[in-house]
Amino acid sequence: MCELLGMECNVLTDIVFSFAGLSARGGKHGPHADGWGLALYDGPVARVFLEPAAAAHSPLATFVKQNPIKTLLAIAHVRRKTRGKVSLANTHPFTRELWGRHFVFAHNGTVKNAFDLKLGRYQPMGRTDSEHAFCHLLGALEHEFKAKAPPPAELAKAIARHAGRIGKGGTFNMLLGDGHQLYARCSTKLHHIVRRAPFKKATLADEDLSVDFAEVTTPKDRVAVIATMPLTRDETWIAGEPNTLWVFRGGKLTKTLAS
Amino acid sequence: MCELLGMECNVLTDIVFSFAGLSARGGKHGPHADGWGLALYDGPVARVFLEPAAAAHSPLATFVKQNPIKTLLAIAHVRRKTRGKVSLANTHPFTRELWGRHFVFAHNGTVKNAFDLKLGRYQPMGRTDSEHAFCHLLGALEHEFKAKAPPPAELAKAIARHAGRIGKGGTFNMLLGDGHQLYARCSTKLHHIVRRAPFKKATLADEDLSVDFAEVTTPKDRVAVIATMPLTRDETWIAGEPNTLWVFRGGKLTKTLAS
Repeated sequence: MCELLGMECNVLTDIVFSFAGLSARGGKHGPHADGWGLALYDGPVARVFLEPAAAAHSPLATFVKQNPIKTLLAIAHVRRKTRGKVSLANTHPFTRELWGRHFVFAHNGTVKNAFDLKLGRYQPMGRTDSEHAFCHLLGALEHEFKAKAPPPAELAKAIARHAGRIGKGGTFNMLLGDGHQLYARCSTKLHHIVRRAPFKKATLADEDLSVDFAEVTTPKDRVAVIATMPLTRDETWIAGEPNTLWVFRGGKLTKTLAS
Repeated sequence: MCELLGMECNVLTDIVFSFAGLSARGGKHGPHADGWGLALYDGPVARVFLEPAAAAHSPLATFVKQNPIKTLLAIAHVRRKTRGKVSLANTHPFTRELWGRHFVFAHNGTVKNAFDLKLGRYQPMGRTDSEHAFCHLLGALEHEFKAKAPPPAELAKAIARHAGRIGKGGTFNMLLGDGHQLYARCSTKLHHIVRRAPFKKATLADEDLSVDFAEVTTPKDRVAVIATMPLTRDETWIAGEPNTLWVFRGGKLTKTLAS
C-alpha cells in the first residue's frame, strides 16, 4: 500500500509543508519506504522527481523541501510495494503525454486483474498493476476522444467512468492530473481539505512542524490538498465516499462524480 | 544554439565530470543560460532533471553534481534559445515513451521548416522546432514499426534515415537515447571520445577540474562521451562528419551511418 498527496490551487504555491508530512511517512513514521515521487506542473509540463528509496532519508527529497518550486498542481506518492520490485520503473507517479500535455498518475491499492486490462498506445515501462492501469486508462481516453482533448467537464465524466470500471472489485484510490484539473478517486480511503481565507495555523500530524497560512497567503488564495490520510492534526479534513471522483480546479472542489 | 552532451558505457558510471564541463558553459563561460537538462537512464526509464535557468547558477545542477547518480546512458543539454521562450516546456532534453521505454532527445541547431513536419501520436508540449522534430521522428518510427520495437540494427538504420530527412537544409545535430543505444547525428558540429584502458588523467577545457580515470575505473570499462565541442583539453576527440549518425552501445562506437 502507498500514500497519496495532491495539491491544486488558484495561485502558485509550494507543497513543502504537505510534502514534509508525506515524506515522513516514507520510511520514518510509516512503512512506505520503497520509493517516492513528486510531480510539479509548470503549464502543460510536469517536472518529476523520483527515487526508488525511502523519502525520509533521501537527499533529493531534502533538496526539494529546501528549494521549494511553486506550482498550481502537484501529485506526490510514497510507496510500499505490493506488486513489482523496488526500481525507478516501478516508482509513482507515472507520467505520459496526451494531447500535448502531461498526465500524471499515482495509485494506492491493488487493481483487480490489472494485467488483463487492454493496452492502447501507452505501454508500461515497469511491472506494477498501477502503471498498467494508468496506461490502459490513457489508451481508453485517447480511443474515445482521438487526437483532441474534450472540454474539461466531458473529460472528467469519462475519467470517472473508466476509473470506476478499472477499480471494480479491487482497490483503486488514485490521483490523476492533466495540467488543468486534478481528479481524485476514492475507493476506500482518501481525504481532502480546501484552505482559504480566513487562513489559520496548521500542524502536521506526524511531525512537530506547523505553519501559519495567514502569513503566507492573500485573501483570494485557495489551495486544495488531497491525501490518503489527513496530514494535519488541527484542521478538519473531509473523507471521501467510496466510488466517487472529486474534480478540483482553481483551488475548488468543482464536482463529485460517481465512479 | 545549444550544447549537447551524451554518455554511453558498459559499466555504471557517473557523468559528473563531463556535466561539470557542460554546465559551466551554461551561463558561466558560455552563453547557454536559458535552461539545462540532464536525463539519466535506469533500465528503460530515464530520470530527468530540467530547469529553465542557467545551469552554472542552479542549486539543482549543483545537487546533481554533489550527489552523483550512476547510469549506462545519459543525455544532457544547455540551452541558448533561438525558437521558443524560456520555459520548462521548451527545455531539452525531451522525453516520450515508445515500446515501453523512454526515448530521450536533445538538439543543437535549427530545423528547417520544422513546423511543417507531420505529427503522429506524439504532440509537442512546448513551442520549439526541436520538440516538434522529435515528436515527428517518434511518430514516424511508430508508424513504420507499429507496436513492437525492431531489432537494434534496424532501428538505427531507420533513425539515420529519418534524421537525415528532418535535418535536410537545416542544422540538426542531435542526441537520441532509447535505453539500449545512443544515436548521435552530426549536422555541423559534434565530437566524441571513447575512454578505455589504459585510462589517463583528463582536464576540463573550461574549468580547472581534472580527474585521473585510472583511479576510478577497471580495465574492462568503456565509456563513450559525445559533446558539441571537446570538453577536455588533454585528450583527443574525434570530430563527426556532417550528415552521419554514430551509434553507441556497450561503450563502443558500433556503427557510423550516412544520415
